Amino acid sequence: MTTYEPLSESTVAGYVTKLDVARTIFAPNTRLTAQEVGDGNLNQVFIVRDENDPGRAVAVKQALPYIRVVGESWPLSLERMRFETQALLKQNELVPGLVPAVYHHDPAMSLVVMEFLGEHQIMRKPLVARMRFPDFADHISTFLARTLFFTSDLYLTGAEKKELQSQFINPHLCKITEDFVYSNPYMDSPENNWNPLVNDEVEAVRQNANLKIAIAGLKEDFMTKGQALIHGDLHTGSIMLNERDTRVIDPEFAFYGPMGFDIGAVLENLVLNYLSHFAHTLDPEIRCEYQAYLLDTIREIWTQFAAKFDRLWVENAKGELPPATYWQFPGGEEAFRRFREQYLLRVLHDTVGHGGCKMLRRVMGIVSVWDVTSIIDLEARAAVERLAIGIGTRWVLEHSQVNTMDDLLGIVTDGALSLKMARV
Amino acid sequence: MTTYEPLSESTVAGYVTKLDVARTIFAPNTRLTAQEVGDGNLNQVFIVRDENDPGRAVAVKQALPYIRVVGESWPLSLERMRFETQALLKQNELVPGLVPAVYHHDPAMSLVVMEFLGEHQIMRKPLVARMRFPDFADHISTFLARTLFFTSDLYLTGAEKKELQSQFINPHLCKITEDFVYSNPYMDSPENNWNPLVNDEVEAVRQNANLKIAIAGLKEDFMTKGQALIHGDLHTGSIMLNERDTRVIDPEFAFYGPMGFDIGAVLENLVLNYLSHFAHTLDPEIRCEYQAYLLDTIREIWTQFAAKFDRLWVENAKGELPPATYWQFPGGEEAFRRFREQYLLRVLHDTVGHGGCKMLRRVMGIVSVWDVTSIIDLEARAAVERLAIGIGTRWVLEHSQVNTMDDLLGIVTDGALSLKMARV
Repeated sequence: MTTYEPLSESTVAGYVTKLDVARTIFAPNTRLTAQEVGDGNLNQVFIVRDENDPGRAVAVKQALPYIRVVGESWPLSLERMRFETQALLKQNELVPGLVPAVYHHDPAMSLVVMEFLGEHQIMRKPLVARMRFPDFADHISTFLARTLFFTSDLYLTGAEKKELQSQFINPHLCKITEDFVYSNPYMDSPENNWNPLVNDEVEAVRQNANLKIAIAGLKEDFMTKGQALIHGDLHTGSIMLNERDTRVIDPEFAFYGPMGFDIGAVLENLVLNYLSHFAHTLDPEIRCEYQAYLLDTIREIWTQFAAKFDRLWVENAKGELPPATYWQFPGGEEAFRRFREQYLLRVLHDTVGHGGCKMLRRVMGIVSVWDVTSIIDLEARAAVERLAIGIGTRWVLEHSQVNTMDDLLGIVTDGALSLKMARV
Repeated sequence: MTTYEPLSESTVAGYVTKLDVARTIFAPNTRLTAQEVGDGNLNQVFIVRDENDPGRAVAVKQALPYIRVVGESWPLSLERMRFETQALLKQNELVPGLVPAVYHHDPAMSLVVMEFLGEHQIMRKPLVARMRFPDFADHISTFLARTLFFTSDLYLTGAEKKELQSQFINPHLCKITEDFVYSNPYMDSPENNWNPLVNDEVEAVRQNANLKIAIAGLKEDFMTKGQALIHGDLHTGSIMLNERDTRVIDPEFAFYGPMGFDIGAVLENLVLNYLSHFAHTLDPEIRCEYQAYLLDTIREIWTQFAAKFDRLWVENAKGELPPATYWQFPGGEEAFRRFREQYLLRVLHDTVGHGGCKMLRRVMGIVSVWDVTSIIDLEARAAVERLAIGIGTRWVLEHSQVNTMDDLLGIVTDGALSLKMARV
C-alpha cells in the first residue's frame, strides 16, 4: 500500500517504469520522458513516452491535493478520481476500444495510467471545421447501447444492479448538474453568462411558467430515476476521435440516472454545432451539405442505438425486468416486443427533454460551448442562440410527444427555417 | 462493544435492566418478567414487564442466527434488522407517536428495544369485525405525508438525500417485492397459490398482454424511482392501532422507492377488506354502512395526504427540487402551485398502479390476506376474488388516467355493482 504523493515531470517516469504494464508498452531499458499536458484545475495529466519511439506512450492522470478553483477541496478531488477510475474500468469491460484502455490504477495515489490517445482529437473543434466522421454514429450508438443496457435492470439481477448503483452515488458531481443544467440558468444566479443581444429571449425563458414546470419535472427525473450507469457529461468535448476510431473520456460524473440524459447530451451538442454553422459557414451550399450530414448523423445515432439496444435486450434478457418466463404465454413474444418498443419510446422522450434543458443552459448558464462562443460577431452569435433557445424550449415542452426522429429533427429544421425566413 | 449472543426468556430481563432506559420505564429495584411472543421465523420478540405493574413494559426484538425458513441465512437476518432499526429511528424523528418509540438499539446484538404496544391490535382482524377507527385517516395520512415529504428531494439537499439513500440500499428485501408483487404471480411459479374456483380469471390475467406490459412498466418504476424513503410493506398487517392511536410497525423493507407504493398499499388493503364484506357481512344494511365507511376512509386518506403534503412543501420548500428562487418571477407562485399539483397527480397515478399490482398478487401470488382467506366458503371467496382481480386489473391498466378519488373509487364501486347485478 503506497501513500499519496503528487508526481511531477521528474518523478512520473520512474513511477511508470516500475509498473508491470511498462514491460508491455515500452522497449526494455529504454529512456522515458514525461510532459505535463493537463489544462485542468483538479488533476494533472502527464504523457510519458519512449524517448526512442515516441509512439509508445501512456497517459497518467492524478488528482491534485490543493485547491485551484474556489469551492473545491481535496476530498472532492479524490472522490472525483475514484468515480472516473471506477467508470473507466466498467466501460472497459463493456465497450473496450471505445474508451481509453486502463493500464493501471492506484487509489492511494489517486491516479490512473491509461492509453495515450495521440492520434485523436476532441470532437468539438473538428465539427466546427466541418470534418466528417463516417463511423461516429456507429461507434457512439454502440457505446450508448452497451453501457446503458448492461448496467440496467434489463440485464443485471436486482442485487447486482443495486451493488453497482451503491458504488456510484456521486452527490457532488450530481449537484453540479442539478444546479447548472436544471436550476440556475433559468433564474437569477451570479455565474450565469449570456450574450446581451439575447436578453429578451433569456428573460422570456425565465418567465415561461409552462417551460419551468417542465424543466422542474425533468430535474426530478434526473434526481430520482436510477435506470443505468450513465456517463453523465457526454458532450462533444468528452469525445476524442479520428476518422476510424472514437473514444469517450472523462466519466467523472458517472452515476445511476436516466438513459436519455446521455443520449440527449450527444444529440443536443450536434444540434448546437448544426446551428453554429449559420454563422461559421457562409457559403450556403457548403453549409447545407454539412448541416445535412449532421442531421443525418443525429438520425443515425438514435436509430442505430435503438436497434442495438433492442437486439442486446432480446439476446441477453436475463435481468430482473422482467424474467423471461414472464413473457411465456400465447402472444407473449409480441407483448415483450411491445414492452421493448414502449421502453425505448420512454427513453426517446427523456432524451428529448434532457437534451432540451442542456441546449438551453448552453445559451444562458455558466458555460457555453466553443461551437457558439467562437462566433465573434455578437449579432451572428445571437441569431444562432435564438434558434437554440427556440429549439431547446420546444424539445422540453414537447418531449413526451416526440415519437420519432422526424418529430425531433422537424423541430430543429422548423427553427432553422424561421431564421431563413427572417433573412428574406 | 458487545458481541452477538441470542437472548432468551431467562436472560433478556437482565439485559434490559442494565440499560439506561430501564430507569425511566420501570420502578427502581422491581422484578422484571419476560415472555417470548414472536411468531416470526427470523426474529424473536420478548415482552419484558414490571412484575408489580404489568403496564410498564418494553418489547425487545432480536434477529436469530439460525435458518428457520428455507433460503434465509444469518447475514440476511442481520441486514433485515439493520434496515428495520434505521427506518424506525428515522420515522421516530419524522412522525413520533405514529411508530413505536425506540428506547435502545444494539447493532452488535442485532437488537432493538422499543415501546410495548399492549393496547393496540393489528388492523386486519378488527376491520373484518367491522370496527371503526375514526382517526385512522388522519393518522396514516400524516405518517405518509411526513415520511415521504421529509425524505424526498423536495425537502433534502441533493447530498443529504443521496447519503440517506445510500444507507437504505436493500437488495434482498426489494427482491422479495420484485418477485412476489411484480413477476411471479403473473406467470408459472411454484409458490403461487390461488383458489381453484378462480382458475379462469387467474389464467386470463397471465395471458393479458396489455396488463402484463403495464405491470412490467410498474416494476421498472419500483426498481428505478428513488423518490423517497418508503416503508415498503405498508399493508394493514403492518399497522397496530386502537380507536385513539395508530402505529406503523415492521419497516424492514424500507428503501428509496416511489411514494405511490406506500400509499397504494394502504388503499388497496382497504379495498380488499371492503370486498371481503360481501362474504363476511351478509346483512345488506350493515354491510352497506360499513363499506361506505371504508370508501370514505380511502377518500379521506388520499385527500388529507395530498393537503398535508402540499402544505409541508409550501412551508418547507428548502430542498433541491427546485430551489425557491427558481419560482421568483411574475406568475411564479402560480407556476409553483401547478408544479405541486402535477407532482401530486403523478403520485396518485403511481398509487393506483402499484396498488393495482398488489391487489392482484394477493389473489394469485404466494400470500393472500386474512380478510379473504378467512372466507371459508370457496364460492363466496371466489366472488370476492373475481372482484379484486377485476378492480386490480383496471387500476393497473388505467392508472395514468385516474385523476381524482372519484375515478379511483368509481372503479371499485363499478366492480361491486357487477357482483350485485350477477346476483339479481
